[in-house]
Amino acid sequence: MSKAFIAGAGTTAFGSFPDRTGRELFAEAGRVALDDAGLSPDAVDEVYYGNFVGTLAENQGHQGPLAAEALGTTAPSRRIESACASSGLAVRDAVRAVRSGEADLVVAGGMERMSNMGTAGATDGLARAADDLFEIRAGVTFPAAYALMARAYFETFGGDREDLAAIAVKNHDNALANDHAHLQESIAVEDVLEAPAIAAPLGLYDACPISDGAAAVVLASPAYAAEHDLDAGVAVTGSGHGGDTMALQDRDSLATTPATREAAVTAYDEAGIDPDDVDLAEVHDCFTIAEVLALEGLGLYGYGEAIGAAARGDTRRDGSLPVNLSGGLKAKGHPVGATGAAQIAAVSSLLEGTHPRSDALEDATVGVAHNAGGTVASATVHVLEVVA
Amino acid sequence: MSKAFIAGAGTTAFGSFPDRTGRELFAEAGRVALDDAGLSPDAVDEVYYGNFVGTLAENQGHQGPLAAEALGTTAPSRRIESACASSGLAVRDAVRAVRSGEADLVVAGGMERMSNMGTAGATDGLARAADDLFEIRAGVTFPAAYALMARAYFETFGGDREDLAAIAVKNHDNALANDHAHLQESIAVEDVLEAPAIAAPLGLYDACPISDGAAAVVLASPAYAAEHDLDAGVAVTGSGHGGDTMALQDRDSLATTPATREAAVTAYDEAGIDPDDVDLAEVHDCFTIAEVLALEGLGLYGYGEAIGAAARGDTRRDGSLPVNLSGGLKAKGHPVGATGAAQIAAVSSLLEGTHPRSDALEDATVGVAHNAGGTVASATVHVLEVVA
Repeated sequence: MSKAFIAGAGTTAFGSFPDRTGRELFAEAGRVALDDAGLSPDAVDEVYYGNFVGTLAENQGHQGPLAAEALGTTAPSRRIESACASSGLAVRDAVRAVRSGEADLVVAGGMERMSNMGTAGATDGLARAADDLFEIRAGVTFPAAYALMARAYFETFGGDREDLAAIAVKNHDNALANDHAHLQESIAVEDVLEAPAIAAPLGLYDACPISDGAAAVVLASPAYAAEHDLDAGVAVTGSGHGGDTMALQDRDSLATTPATREAAVTAYDEAGIDPDDVDLAEVHDCFTIAEVLALEGLGLYGYGEAIGAAARGDTRRDGSLPVNLSGGLKAKGHPVGATGAAQIAAVSSLLEGTHPRSDALEDATVGVAHNAGGTVASATVHVLEVVA
Repeated sequence: MSKAFIAGAGTTAFGSFPDRTGRELFAEAGRVALDDAGLSPDAVDEVYYGNFVGTLAENQGHQGPLAAEALGTTAPSRRIESACASSGLAVRDAVRAVRSGEADLVVAGGMERMSNMGTAGATDGLARAADDLFEIRAGVTFPAAYALMARAYFETFGGDREDLAAIAVKNHDNALANDHAHLQESIAVEDVLEAPAIAAPLGLYDACPISDGAAAVVLASPAYAAEHDLDAGVAVTGSGHGGDTMALQDRDSLATTPATREAAVTAYDEAGIDPDDVDLAEVHDCFTIAEVLALEGLGLYGYGEAIGAAARGDTRRDGSLPVNLSGGLKAKGHPVGATGAAQIAAVSSLLEGTHPRSDALEDATVGVAHNAGGTVASATVHVLEVVA
């Protein structure tokens, strides 16, 4: 399987920007990414754009052409929506376009803007990532769905709120060095344990914030990168995608995430690596329990074994496998449609040595990015490797 | 460029079904398509699903996994949204997945359900296909945007309302044989001319209806089709995608559609055909003027030359190039997210000889399907050919 080089990457700051339009946010991220690649918009063959609820937040469908225009091109574009995995999937489909030879140079990214919807509006919007008929109308909120998964995990494998709190503390700590992070504040395990309950066992600090922001990566075929002498030291060497039932009630277990496993197996196989080869990971920690489920789905830990990883220090930045050095969704923020692309951008810069947390790494050559939609009814996994 | 065989196709009836859920509609179309292919859901590698405003109409995002479940699988899925071109693009990306060798058997389709939104709600939803900031907030409705294009066309190339009326009459007439058509009523030129104005020069009968419905096609790689002895006599031999500015104000001309041209050039080139080789076409006639713009964008007529085609009889079913034998969006109906896939299904069955209007064709071997998003800010073109 051929590679897709990451020629450039860019993100906006993540935070609450109710007065900035989605097109303005994506223009900023996209232009940073193109500048990083040293390319003009004319070079772009196609645009892959992830967005979840722009139809509600900005009365705007058909956002592909707007995303392309924000970059300065009318190249063919599409919007890909898979809830919180929208731009992980946008990157995946862009990688496939490059690998198949149908495009040489593509931009993949995404944007979300939800702060202008208000808390009730954003909660209502996020509920659309779950099954409206069989979950939401039954009274399940999105945090409640993850709380059910946390309870199932505790019952199946053990663990407690302190184990989860250590994940929040770790990711907040990592975000302190990230100027673009939504939450830059140091927290302690006690803060997490004493925070208001959202849906037991999850409290306020177990949840990521509702963020606005955008992210973009520029992907190039090996031939294009060579011909244009692009400075691309990292490539996507594996890409996987998995699916599961939409509603939790239809699954055999709520304590594991088969969609993540399916995506990981494909991605590792394409890259020709084993979980043991992975030096760092950015995983989808929309809630603290989600980081545990992700690490196990990715095979980086056995089932039931990731729950104590942060508390033990394994996944901290001085541990054996640093996870969410960017701060993760938990502290960096989670502009839904931008998250997957932002993870790829983070892994790329961490491997290249240009990320503020790169100093935590020694001889890191393989990174993984994991993006999940809804309660992991969809998931993408990308393997990035240093290639130059 | 390798082919993608059309192993099966299915659509629901198109009409007003406010009490049928989207998942129910897509399940019907998808199961018909899989049955037509003689395959079980277990055979499906991936699902590509087009939908425009389900986030509004059914409070439902993340529809990819629901579409897959409707088929009876948890295979990886994505929702692709490009306004009215959503499932044309879903088919395109599915074709690419098959051609690249990354999937052997995929289902591509789409669904829309808008009748439950009421007329005001549907009008509001459809407006999201245009630029909210620079068109809709300025008072442009979606029909008004096409009315501007019709006026620009008349001023640039000539033509009048009677020319457009002949298109409506033709497409209504074609739909009389189509049991699944939303509008099965014969109309005369006078009916069109005397209908209430919607946005001058367009009247009620220049516009397609707001429809509910779903469509799906099953695409197979040549190797898979051979190995499983699939009865697939038609293949997609060319696929193209074009882009343009979102807002009309940013275009050099409103009388031509460069996105359609871009998509057509790619599709013909891949298939190794010229416009002269095309035996029939299903084109995106959301308004009568759109059929004219499509035929010229497709190069089937020179610029300024398609306006009289229906009135002259050229594009009628006994003419030299039958267009919209299914009834088109105009009379078959336009469930937005389903339309592109329904066009592919129609061309496939017309070429195979199984469509009620196949008897209008003699030795037809090459068909074209054209799907447009918004005011043709995006467009897809597929070439289908008889291969067995």
